[in-house]
Amino acid sequence: MVDDTKGITVKKADDMAAWYGQVVIKSELADYAPIRGFMVIRPNGYALWEAIQRTLDGLVRKRGVRNAYFPLLIPESFFRKEAEHAEGFSPEVAWIESKEGEERLAIRPTSETIMYDSYSRWIRSWRDLPLRINQWCNIVRWEVKDTKIFLRTREFLWQEGHCVYETETECHKETLFYLECYRRVAEGLLAVPCVVGRKTESEKFAGAKATYTFEGFMPDGKALQMGTSHDLGQNFSRAFDISFLGKDGQRSLPWQNSWGITTRLLGALVMTHGDDRGLVLPPRIASNKIAIVPIFVKDDAMNVRTIAAARSLAKQLARFNPILDESQEYSAGWKFNQYELQGIPLRVEIGPKDIESDQVVLVRRDTGGKSAVPRTGAAVAIRKLLDDIQAALFQRAKERLEAAKTPVSTWEEFLKADKDTRFIIAHHCGSPECEAAIKAETQGVTARCIPLRGGKSEGAPCVKCGGKASYRAFFARAY
Amino acid sequence: MVDDTKGITVKKADDMAAWYGQVVIKSELADYAPIRGFMVIRPNGYALWEAIQRTLDGLVRKRGVRNAYFPLLIPESFFRKEAEHAEGFSPEVAWIESKEGEERLAIRPTSETIMYDSYSRWIRSWRDLPLRINQWCNIVRWEVKDTKIFLRTREFLWQEGHCVYETETECHKETLFYLECYRRVAEGLLAVPCVVGRKTESEKFAGAKATYTFEGFMPDGKALQMGTSHDLGQNFSRAFDISFLGKDGQRSLPWQNSWGITTRLLGALVMTHGDDRGLVLPPRIASNKIAIVPIFVKDDAMNVRTIAAARSLAKQLARFNPILDESQEYSAGWKFNQYELQGIPLRVEIGPKDIESDQVVLVRRDTGGKSAVPRTGAAVAIRKLLDDIQAALFQRAKERLEAAKTPVSTWEEFLKADKDTRFIIAHHCGSPECEAAIKAETQGVTARCIPLRGGKSEGAPCVKCGGKASYRAFFARAY
Repeated sequence: MVDDTKGITVKKADDMAAWYGQVVIKSELADYAPIRGFMVIRPNGYALWEAIQRTLDGLVRKRGVRNAYFPLLIPESFFRKEAEHAEGFSPEVAWIESKEGEERLAIRPTSETIMYDSYSRWIRSWRDLPLRINQWCNIVRWEVKDTKIFLRTREFLWQEGHCVYETETECHKETLFYLECYRRVAEGLLAVPCVVGRKTESEKFAGAKATYTFEGFMPDGKALQMGTSHDLGQNFSRAFDISFLGKDGQRSLPWQNSWGITTRLLGALVMTHGDDRGLVLPPRIASNKIAIVPIFVKDDAMNVRTIAAARSLAKQLARFNPILDESQEYSAGWKFNQYELQGIPLRVEIGPKDIESDQVVLVRRDTGGKSAVPRTGAAVAIRKLLDDIQAALFQRAKERLEAAKTPVSTWEEFLKADKDTRFIIAHHCGSPECEAAIKAETQGVTARCIPLRGGKSEGAPCVKCGGKASYRAFFARAY
Repeated sequence: MVDDTKGITVKKADDMAAWYGQVVIKSELADYAPIRGFMVIRPNGYALWEAIQRTLDGLVRKRGVRNAYFPLLIPESFFRKEAEHAEGFSPEVAWIESKEGEERLAIRPTSETIMYDSYSRWIRSWRDLPLRINQWCNIVRWEVKDTKIFLRTREFLWQEGHCVYETETECHKETLFYLECYRRVAEGLLAVPCVVGRKTESEKFAGAKATYTFEGFMPDGKALQMGTSHDLGQNFSRAFDISFLGKDGQRSLPWQNSWGITTRLLGALVMTHGDDRGLVLPPRIASNKIAIVPIFVKDDAMNVRTIAAARSLAKQLARFNPILDESQEYSAGWKFNQYELQGIPLRVEIGPKDIESDQVVLVRRDTGGKSAVPRTGAAVAIRKLLDDIQAALFQRAKERLEAAKTPVSTWEEFLKADKDTRFIIAHHCGSPECEAAIKAETQGVTARCIPLRGGKSEGAPCVKCGGKASYRAFFARAY
């Protein structure tokens, strides 16, 4: 159990894990569930997820993606159809107690198999392609490692897009398109900068030809895989018997991709922007962008006027979906702390002196910066401040990411950079054994991705084995 | 398997069950899943569900309801806490194969127990009330009866609202408020008229003090329970140890309600409005409100002009989210059939003659009524026609419902009305045994609800046992 006092009692710099737990619980984003490894996403957290849903839906809808819903349960025989896939997921699957005379069923750990079974019946000719379907749903993976709300839980929410194309080129191009949509969600909405790249052979999705990823770098020096887009090639169309009659009159296997982001993004958001006072929400994702706090005095008549002014202000600023806190049981200071804890981007104070000078006081959550603006035109000033906050949060996080990137040439430099919790960039030979040796020797550093820009090997030797490098990759410990 | 030809091959009046199956599958609302009793909700169907979500979210958000997400799995011990509830759901629960040293877990058949466990920790004082939380999620109930897509499936999607109040009065009032929201979704969005009322003691939710329902009446003479709102009283707050410190300084049990609608509503929509050519969508719920079909001729140059005119029309009519079908592989007639099958409310035709006279041809899905309107101002004409269609669909369904309502006084009249598949209104004593006798003797007629208006007994004798009536209720066979 966390400390029951309202404020955050651990400093982010001192113990980020403990700080993270307190922020998530005390800002009421989520709560522990009575089952180990599960979480309750509370309204404050779910509103953030809904903002992510709206944004991503808007981006992919233009490309023709439509939402659907496939069954929660998957027959055991389906898993076996794609061998690598089956092996990759088998330890994590939760099974249903068998019902009489029925096949053993799993709770979906991902839906390739159940969806592609339908696809094999829906796709007949090139006229049915491209097929672009996405679903928002819950997923269960019985992870054995320590669970952490949003970052690693046995159940999480996600979306999984599953598209089918006539040609390899089109498939590959769109695999990267969805990755780019994700980057826009991460950087544009959550203000979390990331590195986009391809996973190494050892780290790619079970059954994929190639996996693309976008990786954030958290203030404690660990990378966070924020989502992936898989080029599945024809692996699943072969295994699930999906074929189409082409324009050439020939029956062919189509090309597929799948792509997903999860509630894990909320963890990235908390870690990236939060501070010792609690959550800090980028304005674009915050559903309540401002909190209006009337300042009361020991004069009831005056307070009645203040409330009236605050209400009229709330109407004037309705577009920012303001919280208006009229309660007189709590002090203004208590309220300030409360809305800071919850990460509301901007506080708007209005008291007797402000009414007199026809102004309001604006206080930024990110910097604490305070300014008074005339009440007329407050909306314009707030709009501008919110844009500034969004940009500043991204800028600060981007600077941290760039400062963390550390190219190394030798194994000694690699170990030093790991010790300093840097985001290591190194040439690598590409051999899974050599990659495993790095992980073993460092007790946990893994290849995060081969960046789409700057991933070429340039003829240098592998940082570990000294062999010929195949690429330049990012390495780090990871969530 | 259904017939693989494109059109509907069964008449609605001849065999509504077979007709229903064909419409659902061929209009691509949904598909059978490879697991018995499960369904795949395809993009055409899911878009309708999303429209329901948006509409209901909009209505309840104003009342302060916020969305959240609770775990899929529920510990066995939680079910046992409220005895009636446990008994009501035990036959329908799907269990997870136990993991070593962990409690047996069920897939949620409803979430009262897992949510109220959290509520017991979140609610401390009257300041935490009212608490109003809703979740949109999947539900599994291992029904043994025959499954039917949307109407009765082992997995379905729903929302479940769970609210907590200081007073009984407030709780009761809001239980009815959510019922009224549902009525507005059913009648306003889906154009499905319904009877709102209270369930009898035998038919109420396991663990509720009272269950309120809205019941549709389908063209085959069966009632359909479309959703429910339960006044839970203090049954669950007692069982789950939810209490609050009141303004009076006393610790008290709060009052609760829960309320839900499911993907079953899509079944009501199909049955109420569909016809022998397929689905008929009320314009408000249709995501593509119009389909623009260019009429091609044996003159390529002319067809180029027609396509250009159709594209410009699509831009002009963008607010109706038009389908623009430019393909030249299918005939216009084939396309007409296709969009009729899918229920698109209005077809817009544009061909060489229309271009010449600067007009477009509008064809209503519901009546087949055809009219030509000047191209300038087409948007206004379409807006008006869509409103007319929405109103007409509701009006026709409402007339059917009203015509089906049949008050009876004697048991002979009751049996006759049942034979004639009427929506029977009869006085009843209220005894569960007498209600069971009606069901047994008719082999399936049940009390659907005691209507909120017109449910008083007026001193008449019970239609079955002749005892003193407690109320006037609706009776019918039901889905």
